[in-house]
Amino acid sequence: MLNISDSLESLVDELSKLPQIGRKTAQRLAMHIIKQPKEDVEKLSKALIEIKEKIKFCSVCCNITEDDVCKICSSEKRNKNVICVVEDPKDVYAIEKTNEYRGMYHVLHGRISPLDGIGPNDIKIKELLYRLDEKETGKVDELILALNPTVEGETTILYLNKLIKPLNVKITRIARGIPIGADLEFADEVTLAKAIEGRVTV
Amino acid sequence: MLNISDSLESLVDELSKLPQIGRKTAQRLAMHIIKQPKEDVEKLSKALIEIKEKIKFCSVCCNITEDDVCKICSSEKRNKNVICVVEDPKDVYAIEKTNEYRGMYHVLHGRISPLDGIGPNDIKIKELLYRLDEKETGKVDELILALNPTVEGETTILYLNKLIKPLNVKITRIARGIPIGADLEFADEVTLAKAIEGRVTV
Repeated sequence: MLNISDSLESLVDELSKLPQIGRKTAQRLAMHIIKQPKEDVEKLSKALIEIKEKIKFCSVCCNITEDDVCKICSSEKRNKNVICVVEDPKDVYAIEKTNEYRGMYHVLHGRISPLDGIGPNDIKIKELLYRLDEKETGKVDELILALNPTVEGETTILYLNKLIKPLNVKITRIARGIPIGADLEFADEVTLAKAIEGRVTV
Repeated sequence: MLNISDSLESLVDELSKLPQIGRKTAQRLAMHIIKQPKEDVEKLSKALIEIKEKIKFCSVCCNITEDDVCKICSSEKRNKNVICVVEDPKDVYAIEKTNEYRGMYHVLHGRISPLDGIGPNDIKIKELLYRLDEKETGKVDELILALNPTVEGETTILYLNKLIKPLNVKITRIARGIPIGADLEFADEVTLAKAIEGRVTV
């Protein structure tokens, strides 16, 4: 690209660092930003700074929040005896949207993935163990492992299961099976096998 | 989405105003930004503000630039007698990358599109006419219309042709035909017809 302006170049550089935004998309976004009213661009710029200043991790569940303890952890209406373990803050939103679950969460911020060099100490397992300590935070009856059904997710489940079993907490995992609205014909073998394995009485 | 944080919501709002970025992508980008080091986010935020402060339109060709007159317009090495008219600053980059054209440019910042309510006065036609005025800026021999071969582009070409013909300037348009590397078999009828119509002696 013809170097017309250093400020354009540096904006394109910064934008193309974002995930799934290549150089060409970054150029298109930069061109759009040039045409936008100044106030709109200032709003975006301010929102970026603000999020880094305000967002922190909940000291209990490690989810993102603006407070020391997030709204779910500080709510009186939620069942403190059940903890749902997820990989990412996005998963908390996904589960909250179902309006079915009224317990607590714990966000691991990743999963054990030896190939990527992510071990048990790189994710929030220590914080989870602290919460399971009865003397510290009260009795937890059940731990629901809602990790993604990938190789890394399974590894993390196996690891957590081994680690937590001695603590005498019931450990469950979310069901794997045929998604609602899907067709048996098009389900893959592993999913179908898991669905048969996990059959329930009608 | 569960309203966890106002600053997250407002960042997602601002990001989803960008072209081709929906709410879901904006959420993913925001989550990525939360995980980034503070310096990186500050750099992006600063780049956004800087571009609005520094970028302006060249007073001659209306291309974007950081100076009053852009590098191409102020260059001594370029042929001032030929002006290539394009719709958008992006088109200037595209033509510059060919390393074939050594004349000047004029950026219209749009094309005549009655359906979108864009008339001749909404794009930089007045500025082009001023440049064609011999007494003001010197003799222009040729005007190359490098507009996109769309209905709106054609409309703009027709309008400019009618307007500029009396000024006694040679008006040309870039060739329409089969792109290099393409297959005749897969070319659409209009392109193929234009390619035959515009045939040249070998």
